[in-house]
Amino acid sequence: MEVGQVLHMNGGVGETSYANNSFVQQKVITMTKPITEDAITKLYRSSYPVAIAIADLGCSSGPNTLFAVSELIKAVDSIRRKMRRKSPEYQVFLNDLPGNDFNTIFRSLSVFQNKLRNQLGADAGPCFFTGVPGSFYGRLFRKNSLHFVHSSYSLQWLSQVPEGLENNKGNIYMASSSPPDVPRAYYKQFQQDFSLFLKCRSEELVDGGRMVLTVLRRRSDDPSSKEGCYIWELLAMALNDMVLEGVIEEEKLNTFNIPQYTPSQNEIDLSDAFKDGGYNVAKCMRAVAEPLIVSHFGEAIVDQVFQRYREIIADRMSKEKTEFVNVIVSLIKV
Amino acid sequence: MEVGQVLHMNGGVGETSYANNSFVQQKVITMTKPITEDAITKLYRSSYPVAIAIADLGCSSGPNTLFAVSELIKAVDSIRRKMRRKSPEYQVFLNDLPGNDFNTIFRSLSVFQNKLRNQLGADAGPCFFTGVPGSFYGRLFRKNSLHFVHSSYSLQWLSQVPEGLENNKGNIYMASSSPPDVPRAYYKQFQQDFSLFLKCRSEELVDGGRMVLTVLRRRSDDPSSKEGCYIWELLAMALNDMVLEGVIEEEKLNTFNIPQYTPSQNEIDLSDAFKDGGYNVAKCMRAVAEPLIVSHFGEAIVDQVFQRYREIIADRMSKEKTEFVNVIVSLIKV
Repeated sequence: MEVGQVLHMNGGVGETSYANNSFVQQKVITMTKPITEDAITKLYRSSYPVAIAIADLGCSSGPNTLFAVSELIKAVDSIRRKMRRKSPEYQVFLNDLPGNDFNTIFRSLSVFQNKLRNQLGADAGPCFFTGVPGSFYGRLFRKNSLHFVHSSYSLQWLSQVPEGLENNKGNIYMASSSPPDVPRAYYKQFQQDFSLFLKCRSEELVDGGRMVLTVLRRRSDDPSSKEGCYIWELLAMALNDMVLEGVIEEEKLNTFNIPQYTPSQNEIDLSDAFKDGGYNVAKCMRAVAEPLIVSHFGEAIVDQVFQRYREIIADRMSKEKTEFVNVIVSLIKV
Repeated sequence: MEVGQVLHMNGGVGETSYANNSFVQQKVITMTKPITEDAITKLYRSSYPVAIAIADLGCSSGPNTLFAVSELIKAVDSIRRKMRRKSPEYQVFLNDLPGNDFNTIFRSLSVFQNKLRNQLGADAGPCFFTGVPGSFYGRLFRKNSLHFVHSSYSLQWLSQVPEGLENNKGNIYMASSSPPDVPRAYYKQFQQDFSLFLKCRSEELVDGGRMVLTVLRRRSDDPSSKEGCYIWELLAMALNDMVLEGVIEEEKLNTFNIPQYTPSQNEIDLSDAFKDGGYNVAKCMRAVAEPLIVSHFGEAIVDQVFQRYREIIADRMSKEKTEFVNVIVSLIKV
């Protein structure tokens, strides 16, 4: 599977779209607002740039795409107003993989920009929006061209399915029944990817530029602990049931693994804060995982997979509490 | 009709798509290559920038989208190689209205970038591609941020249908039977739009930045001369036939006008060169005009319109020679 070509949130604005099933991601952006606002305010006050280039990495296509950057722009506008300074111009780069539905974002921009202009007032500088298709595990921008990088709930996606998962039969992720080389392979891939991410961004950020990253994380340091992989294990249950019933070939399931890694607090170097939040996950997971499932198993079985998954989740959630835990990293380039 | 929302070339890669029916535009880019190459070479040699920001305005979605900018990048790479200089980084901004099919461009980028990298060689700087949705009759980029602007076959599209065309009944453009206030209204709109275009670009270009514009033009100074409006008059014939047969309401046709103006040589200030080219136009015109027709008359009649149009064009082309004439403007910001 070529992750860069296949991975994207469900496009459009329909019932199973990411746009209509991304409430948890929005909640996370709201929760992390004090940290992102603090970072961009400090950035602005450190040099009063006449133009601020902001990149949102893994912007997806939905209400959150513009929500995060609009909060950042409002924060700058509020502080420059208090300080009676002329507004900077804003250059916003919205990045995601090429499979992302940029058309839907671009067609909603005009209404969004009018609304933002009304909120900011007539003396605010213009906001220029551009779409940047490509993997953030590689260079996306010119050297020393970005002031601020924001990324929320994207860095848990790996650049590829880790190599060496041949023994992960019946599982689709690190599971309690996975052999020990499986979490090791996942962790190795995460380390490689995260290092490359930091290297690329350090080239692209101006000196004094800042970056706030929010990553879904595990509580436990043990990567094979059940808690970190729970939602994927439930999806694996649905798929295994379909293997037993002959709807899906066993070999097909054995070669399917999710290119995601939720690191622990200790596996990310710098951490400023973390927060908790509970959320109903069934539809949200479909908006995220459907393109992966369709690419590997085909279109025909996808409704059935998610109907079974919904039933399994509903059963579990009536008995247990589901929580996501995040790690938020706020960095400055020196 | 909101031109900024409705106007776009036919998306996708199907039979009626712009991608498969834009041969004439590609030919024009090839013909103007000596002028664009000369301009970007002079730009590069004037300051040897470490990063070159190139914008293609009205990039559309098809083979031409990346063809024009790849020729520009190759020209810079060739000259820096001869001069044994380190390659600059390239930042490419692909602009079109929000209705343009950016998804198709973005999904073709990875293959294109690999091909370009092979053509340029390993020591060429990285090329970063971004999509910029919005009207070029307004600011699209930060102040002093562009080195080179290219636009081919886009500036004949107006920002709106001119006001004051109530008397243009039965026509859909400036026609030989249009009253004299119709070409005046079109020309006024073109003047306004073109001035605004130049004003915006002059803010966005760096000092010494350059711009090459190719515009479809009229031969005659008389805007109501038949020659300039020929292809639209043939489309009006197809629509009028359908009014006579009761398929389209007369009032609907009377309120439909094409937001396009092909200026004469004298109506554009600076002109370096012009060239001719003959081309079969039927499918090409559908790829361009279909979204306008569908937006005004509805989806149901569109096949019939273009079938009739094709028959009318076939008849005319068996008797006459169709030619497009262009004006090419090469400008420098001083």
